[in-house]
Formats: sequence, structure tokens, C-alpha cells
Amino acid sequence: MKAYLAGPDVFLPNAVEHARRKVEICARLGFEGQPPLNEDVAALSSMAEEEAWQTIYRKDVAMMEACDIVIANLTPFRGISADSGTLVEIGWFLGRGKPVFGYSNSAASFAERCRAYAAALPDPIPGLSVEGFGLPDNLMIPGAVLQAGGHPMVVPADGQDRPFDSLEMFEACAILAARHLGKAG
Amino acid sequence: MKAYLAGPDVFLPNAVEHARRKVEICARLGFEGQPPLNEDVAALSSMAEEEAWQTIYRKDVAMMEACDIVIANLTPFRGISADSGTLVEIGWFLGRGKPVFGYSNSAASFAERCRAYAAALPDPIPGLSVEGFGLPDNLMIPGAVLQAGGHPMVVPADGQDRPFDSLEMFEACAILAARHLGKAG
Repeated sequence: MKAYLAGPDVFLPNAVEHARRKVEICARLGFEGQPPLNEDVAALSSMAEEEAWQTIYRKDVAMMEACDIVIANLTPFRGISADSGTLVEIGWFLGRGKPVFGYSNSAASFAERCRAYAAALPDPIPGLSVEGFGLPDNLMIPGAVLQAGGHPMVVPADGQDRPFDSLEMFEACAILAARHLGKAG
Repeated sequence: MKAYLAGPDVFLPNAVEHARRKVEICARLGFEGQPPLNEDVAALSSMAEEEAWQTIYRKDVAMMEACDIVIANLTPFRGISADSGTLVEIGWFLGRGKPVFGYSNSAASFAERCRAYAAALPDPIPGLSVEGFGLPDNLMIPGAVLQAGGHPMVVPADGQDRPFDSLEMFEACAILAARHLGKAG
């Protein structure tokens, strides 16, 4: 069984080593983690921009096709919500009817983050609403995770944010995924 | 033919009137626009939070199921990228193999927005990379639009941002969708 390891982890300065740690956690739990590293694309640096990004896009979609589930890092990234590429990817798994597991290293609610964000960078027009519901992100995100994976998003239970590159919530989420794969297999 | 009208438009203070204008543009072009307005959910205000958000989630997914294509407002929203719920939705249409059309009222590249954002709100750890490629958002987004709709994202050709609630780019995108639906039908 293969899990697509979605997330902004690919943007970390130590992305390759970080991915190796995630893959090791998956292996210990009995399944194969597939990190969508751009470092795995040969000759990327010699390509023109348009060829390069479309090559990465096709490589990532092909990797999703080959995976049974997704484990998504939904920690907020440069804004109020999870990384944008990761969100397209969990939508894809939801659309395909494949299980979606997700976690965030942020303990704050979406509404709390929206308020903090608006204090630093005002909204483009006044009066834009903010979703309540006490959820960790826009309702489509915990909704997709709950519908397609059967569990709420994994977030810090003690109300304390974890460091951006912490793997504690990832491991808790990977354990849920392993239980699911154990039942499915 | 029905088009799901995804976007942060639902958060506008005049969301119902704004949706009506979008639906009128679609009707003029010969197809039906379906805006996922929460105002259409009866008794939402009397529900507990968990029932309310799950009701909205199920209503939106059912509306997506009933639509043939999506026209997504991918204008950046409270961060470097498009609205998070909208991104899950375009991923869903991509996963289902249904056409995806998308536009943005922002003329800036993703890399330009990332740099401006980092000046106001520093990254959580140093050294996180920024995608280049001259694209309007994370490559998964123009990638999904190009693969599933056959066109690049519609953005201001003159390099000038449009107001957040402008419908000029929406109309240009709806014309592309109408041509596609004309060929398909």
C-alpha cells in the first residue's frame, strides 16, 4: 500500500532529509510513503520554465494515481490556510474516492488565524465574512478529511502549536492511516 | 449544462447579489451557473456548529456532483494563494475528470506575491523556497486548470490588478467555458 505524502514539506531547505524521515515512519508502520520531491526529476534545471513546471505537475499527478491514500500536511502556509498545492491534491483524492488523512501543526482555529491575519494584512474589501464553526481551516478541508478518511484532522490536542517542521502530528496521522490500510488489506 | 461557480465570492458582504450577477452572465452565454450560497441552506442558523458546517459541506459536494464543469475564482484570498475551499473543489473536479476553468483578478506572479507576503509576515522557518516559473499561483493550480480545462488561468492581460469583486475576468473565463460546452453539447 502506498501513501502520497502531500504538504509544503517540499519547500523546506532540508526537503530530501525531511522526506526520508517521513518515509521511515511510514515503513515502520507497514506501508510505503511516496514524497513528491522535485529533486527526483532528472534534468529539471536544464529545462525552460514552462517545461519544468509541467514536468513537475505531471510527475505529481502520476504519483497520486499510483498511491492508495494521501497523508496531507495541512499546517497553514503563507496565509490563513494550508498550502495551496496540497489542497488541490486532497481535492483530487476526494474526487477519486481515495482515502484522505490530514494533520496540522497549528493549534489555532481558522477564525483565530483569520483575525490575526487581518490585523497584519487588511482584507481587499471591507465586510468579508470569516467562517466560524471552531474548525482548523475552511470547512471544505476538515470536510474532505472526515468524509474521505473517516477521521477529523489531527491537530495538537494540548492547544500548543508545534514547530513548522515537527513530525509529531504526522506520526499520529500516519498511525490512523496504517490502521485504515490494515483493515483494507 | 451546469457550471459550479467556486470562489471566495460567498464571503462577500453582498454575496447573494454578486452571485445573481454571475448567474446572469452564464445565462447570457447559454449555460446555468450554480453558486454555492450558504444562504440557500434552510435553518442553518438554528443548527449546532458541527451540524451546520457538515450540512454546508454536503450541500456543496452534492452541487459539484450535479455540475458538468467548474468556473473557479482563483484570486488570492488572505494569503499568497487562492481561497482554500475553492482549491479543494478544483482538485475534486480534476479528480473526477470534469473540466476546470479558472481566473484571477490579480496580475502579480506567485513569486512576486510570496516576496511581498514575506515582507509583512515572515516565514515560520528560514530558507523555505519559493516557486518560480512565472506562474499566477502554486503550479498545481494552473496545472489543474490547463490539464482539465485546456486553457491557462485567465488573468489581467494588461498587468493591472482588478478589484477583488470585479467580474471582468470571470466573464472572460465564462466565455471560454461556453465555447467548451458548445463543442461538448
